[in-house]
Amino acid sequence: MWRGGSNTRTCKRRFFSSPTRSRHHRPPYICRLHSRGSQHLKAMAEVDHLAAERATARFDVEEMKVAWAGSRHAVHVADRMARLVASDPVFRKDNRTMLSRKELFKDTLRKAAHAWKRIVELRLTEEEADLLRQYVDQPGYVDLHWGMFVPAIKGQGTEEQQHKWLPLAYKFQIIGCYAQTELGHGSNVQGLETTATFDPKTDEFVIHSPTLTSSKWWPGGLGKASTHAVVYARLITEGKDYGIHGFIVQLRSLEDHSPLPGVTLGDIGGKFGSGAYNSMDNGVLRFDHVRIPRDQMLMRLSQVTREGKYVHSNVPKQLLYGTMVYVRQSIVADASKALSRAVCIAVRYSAVRKQFGSQDGGPETQVLNYKTQQSRLFPLLASAYAFRFVGDWLNWLYTDVTQKLEAKDFSTLQEAHACTAGLKAVTTSVTADAIEECRKLCGGHGYLNSSGLPELFAVYVPACTYEGDNVVLLLQVARILMKTVSQLASGKQPVGTMAYMGKVQYLMQCKSAVSSAEDWLNPDAIQEAFEARALRMAVNCAQNISQAASQEEAAGFYERSPDLLEAAVAHIQLIIVTKFIEKVHQEIPGHGVKEQLQALCNVYALYILHKHLGDFLATGCITPRQGALANEQLGKLYAQVRPNAVALVDAFNYTDHYLGSVLGRYDGDVYPALYEEAWKDPLNETVVPEGYHEYLRPLIKQQQLKLSRL
Amino acid sequence: MWRGGSNTRTCKRRFFSSPTRSRHHRPPYICRLHSRGSQHLKAMAEVDHLAAERATARFDVEEMKVAWAGSRHAVHVADRMARLVASDPVFRKDNRTMLSRKELFKDTLRKAAHAWKRIVELRLTEEEADLLRQYVDQPGYVDLHWGMFVPAIKGQGTEEQQHKWLPLAYKFQIIGCYAQTELGHGSNVQGLETTATFDPKTDEFVIHSPTLTSSKWWPGGLGKASTHAVVYARLITEGKDYGIHGFIVQLRSLEDHSPLPGVTLGDIGGKFGSGAYNSMDNGVLRFDHVRIPRDQMLMRLSQVTREGKYVHSNVPKQLLYGTMVYVRQSIVADASKALSRAVCIAVRYSAVRKQFGSQDGGPETQVLNYKTQQSRLFPLLASAYAFRFVGDWLNWLYTDVTQKLEAKDFSTLQEAHACTAGLKAVTTSVTADAIEECRKLCGGHGYLNSSGLPELFAVYVPACTYEGDNVVLLLQVARILMKTVSQLASGKQPVGTMAYMGKVQYLMQCKSAVSSAEDWLNPDAIQEAFEARALRMAVNCAQNISQAASQEEAAGFYERSPDLLEAAVAHIQLIIVTKFIEKVHQEIPGHGVKEQLQALCNVYALYILHKHLGDFLATGCITPRQGALANEQLGKLYAQVRPNAVALVDAFNYTDHYLGSVLGRYDGDVYPALYEEAWKDPLNETVVPEGYHEYLRPLIKQQQLKLSRL
Repeated sequence: MWRGGSNTRTCKRRFFSSPTRSRHHRPPYICRLHSRGSQHLKAMAEVDHLAAERATARFDVEEMKVAWAGSRHAVHVADRMARLVASDPVFRKDNRTMLSRKELFKDTLRKAAHAWKRIVELRLTEEEADLLRQYVDQPGYVDLHWGMFVPAIKGQGTEEQQHKWLPLAYKFQIIGCYAQTELGHGSNVQGLETTATFDPKTDEFVIHSPTLTSSKWWPGGLGKASTHAVVYARLITEGKDYGIHGFIVQLRSLEDHSPLPGVTLGDIGGKFGSGAYNSMDNGVLRFDHVRIPRDQMLMRLSQVTREGKYVHSNVPKQLLYGTMVYVRQSIVADASKALSRAVCIAVRYSAVRKQFGSQDGGPETQVLNYKTQQSRLFPLLASAYAFRFVGDWLNWLYTDVTQKLEAKDFSTLQEAHACTAGLKAVTTSVTADAIEECRKLCGGHGYLNSSGLPELFAVYVPACTYEGDNVVLLLQVARILMKTVSQLASGKQPVGTMAYMGKVQYLMQCKSAVSSAEDWLNPDAIQEAFEARALRMAVNCAQNISQAASQEEAAGFYERSPDLLEAAVAHIQLIIVTKFIEKVHQEIPGHGVKEQLQALCNVYALYILHKHLGDFLATGCITPRQGALANEQLGKLYAQVRPNAVALVDAFNYTDHYLGSVLGRYDGDVYPALYEEAWKDPLNETVVPEGYHEYLRPLIKQQQLKLSRL
Repeated sequence: MWRGGSNTRTCKRRFFSSPTRSRHHRPPYICRLHSRGSQHLKAMAEVDHLAAERATARFDVEEMKVAWAGSRHAVHVADRMARLVASDPVFRKDNRTMLSRKELFKDTLRKAAHAWKRIVELRLTEEEADLLRQYVDQPGYVDLHWGMFVPAIKGQGTEEQQHKWLPLAYKFQIIGCYAQTELGHGSNVQGLETTATFDPKTDEFVIHSPTLTSSKWWPGGLGKASTHAVVYARLITEGKDYGIHGFIVQLRSLEDHSPLPGVTLGDIGGKFGSGAYNSMDNGVLRFDHVRIPRDQMLMRLSQVTREGKYVHSNVPKQLLYGTMVYVRQSIVADASKALSRAVCIAVRYSAVRKQFGSQDGGPETQVLNYKTQQSRLFPLLASAYAFRFVGDWLNWLYTDVTQKLEAKDFSTLQEAHACTAGLKAVTTSVTADAIEECRKLCGGHGYLNSSGLPELFAVYVPACTYEGDNVVLLLQVARILMKTVSQLASGKQPVGTMAYMGKVQYLMQCKSAVSSAEDWLNPDAIQEAFEARALRMAVNCAQNISQAASQEEAAGFYERSPDLLEAAVAHIQLIIVTKFIEKVHQEIPGHGVKEQLQALCNVYALYILHKHLGDFLATGCITPRQGALANEQLGKLYAQVRPNAVALVDAFNYTDHYLGSVLGRYDGDVYPALYEEAWKDPLNETVVPEGYHEYLRPLIKQQQLKLSRL
């Protein structure tokens, strides 16, 4: 198995000194470990402290890998790309949190160039190349180049523009980023201040930053790497402001990378965490009357003529929503990846770690056996699977929306927008909190960079803010919910994920039939409770808004916005539960795989029910007794998950390289590895720390403190 | 006003180049700002973008400062110490997240030595010195020296031992730390593996680390700074293991700081965040048969005689609990500090930041006006005040417990233990989550290090784990709750914060009389609902445990532990609400101060009620209608807090230096400061980044990629 091979390599790098390592002070204990190196190595290649855990799994892990990845092909390709990255020393990342900002950035440039070299050399497919970049696992300019710059030109450029710019971008002859947000303007794109004023004399646009707050701020890849950007600016022609449009602007010389005249460029400074997103050059950009040819306005939807007339094309604006759906579905997919990595680390280490419970000095109890640990960790494990499957479904939805858009059928667009926006908001918020919860579930050691969890958290949390702040997105969902409720009376049937709202008569008065804990294993019971809760919360909000009769509707919406957020979340949780139930209804091959997914589906649903019990009780969907039964069943499900937990995270099929966590090692051999990692810290380069003679010795020796002056 | 002065100084440092700054690339825009420097300075010293916010406050901010700090004297001393630190260039911390680990550690040594110098020079009192260290705001070895090493000797050492060791520690002739946790052992102190074996031949203890997992791991100050440690080890004499005891062990030479023979010492490596807790040398320590004189065992409670006999002294063991109560009450006080800092930043920036809501290009709406922002932020503002006041009360409780212990009255010890442990758990968990929530409430810019929030979060979160993992502590609370419930039948009256449980007859069947939203402003209505909820949850748990009749009680407790955690939280939230209500019942001078605190108290209570609505409904303490009325009242309270919000965070009286946040600036002049900060990043030292020639140019120029080999 390649995992064994990978571990061996890791051990080699760890156990034999390298040029950078030899500078470090090595205590006697470590030297002894080293002298036993080769013997130790053999033992370690075979050791599996989690073997007993793997033996208790009641399902076929290889088949679960297929269910998780989506297909046998997907498992195979991911496996190959993960191995390619893990075995390549250029992609090493275990020292990343110790690099200075400049070293880290240079390392990112190096990895990006090397990844490109490998992609070209091995003639990788697009799918393979995407996976390879994912496993390199270091944010960098290429993410924006491929993820935002190229799609923006594809989506908003005319065929001619695509023909001109895309080949350059595909070959990296230009490097592009996406310059939208400004220092003073984030969520509200219509508030952007940068101007693009058409000058008919020269047939050019003049791009300008009129205020400090109009400085472009945050775009990834902008600060140091990009040569070009799609810049969003207010289009002004014939003295009139036509609002925000995109423009392709060259920023740096293709000869020496220096900023072009009138362009001020820089990095916006350090961000959360060490390593993490600091590999990215999020940038600041100011324009001082920079001129670009007219044909660098992205003109698919509207254009400015040679004379300066603003005209719309016949391409419908709705086409742009396709891109938004695409980007957000990929964010949901990323959420399940990030969450599953954190859960994988926490589950494995909870099986390794022992605390309390020993009698007379005997072995302590595995932390994973504690009900408190299970009740915090297993819902997150279930959520990882839930998000994975709803992500798969979103991917299908994107294809569906695209086909409909091409046929100029916009009927499902609003519903698709609501569900992608809402799923983006819910999955990213939950994932951010869950990574931190997993860190806490690892006890003190989770706080060490070597656990991988601090960096995973710090690099993940911006997902709650970018591509639509989660609160703003949920309010958009709520707005569509309110509109749908208001149309129910007129008999308009809601579609897609809102179809359940058509059952308003039934759902407003139904009562759950659950009378035993086992009854909660029935997916219909769960589905109905979640539908009734979501609908009743939406209807309550709508009534409260309309009751605020003296006010205009907008003010009522604004007053009730905290409740609307809760209603939107209930609607989105229903979608996640529904898609998980649908998944489990499908045929799923492999011994025991379906049963495990059924258990996880129930864990997810009943955990949400317990967590939001107030919603279910307040709307009268269930009784307190039924709530208590759900909680009882949840406890039984945890017991069912317990022996399968390690195998359920093995099914994610992550390499030790990708996990990047000493605590999450596949072999569970955590403590020697933690001990080894410690000595790599720069502070351990010397026994006596720098500063001892100036700042410690004078104290201890009670000498006059001689402090250097500033 | 000194705040103005402080800002002026900050501006000076910011606007005139210093030797370190001149290396940095300055774009033309910045140069222009600089050339306007002196003019700009004057303007900035007077600017107050939040003046309008401050003018709307309906209370006396100076008097609120007194209510927050506890006394006029406390305001005065804190003010003086904060100013002392903020004005001293050695204590500068705005560049902290950019320092390498070694630079940061050296900077910490420097600050500690300088602080000590100032303390000695100015003959500061203990109160002043503590405050000064607090405002220096950088974790370091002195925290453990004063906070753990000295108290351990005071609490566990004999008078003779105190006489010998304390004077050395007081003068820093020795630097001490507290070496308890081990690589494989955290929460369960009884599981520690380090041994201290008495050798009667030489009258010495032999300290030894028998396994890898017995390595001391985590103690702050251990890795690089300490010369001594209180080491916890299994005492073995005459072949018998007497369990864990403390020993004073010298670790490093007082001459050259090198580790003594048999002692292996190092730092355990980087931790969460940049800056943050990386200033601390959390350490690893291994002993290879290290010998110490017998009289370095801390012998207040038990001793080993010259012959090797283990004997107990007549000092009751309970005395040690006093220290635990002390440490935990200080953690609660720290929680209110950390939370209030985050809230201060988020409230001020929410008043500065504008998004959406403009009509036809007019000014956008302040984010603080949005109900969704208020509903997330104001409960945290209220929590900061709630934690502050419950912390004050805990401080009183500590004094009370100490006096009772000295009189050998142990009657309230268990209850005091439950409430300090529980308050530690709840306030730290809430604060950790709340700092991150405040960061998100600042939008994208909260992700920048210059916002101060990433570092505040990273440095704070270990509080959830150290001095008792929060889950372990809550289970201890639950255990005492279950014991108290079981004794109710026998007529034993619970004391202190558990006294309400004596009203079991009434509280098990009472129904809330609330019939309008305003009724929820009545503290009795709140108090009763919270008491009934806490008691009913505890009684439910007790019944469920005893119903598991076939099992032994311990197994029942274990099975129900997730529910027990919830019951413990309900009990602790009741304490916080009760102490806030009691505070508001006191006489509080100052125009409008009491009214504001009343509003915040209600916000806190009704927010908790809404958040945990399921508890209140499931136990039948309130009806769904009453729950909806509470939520309605909460919305009205937010409107009441809104005009006072900025003044309510001004009352924390934090300097810009202590806040350490560009977003939280007192003057609200955020955007120019953010822009200035960006250019300080090392990446901006050059226009063209390092690595361009190796890794970017070859791509752009389509040259053969020449990548350096490993």
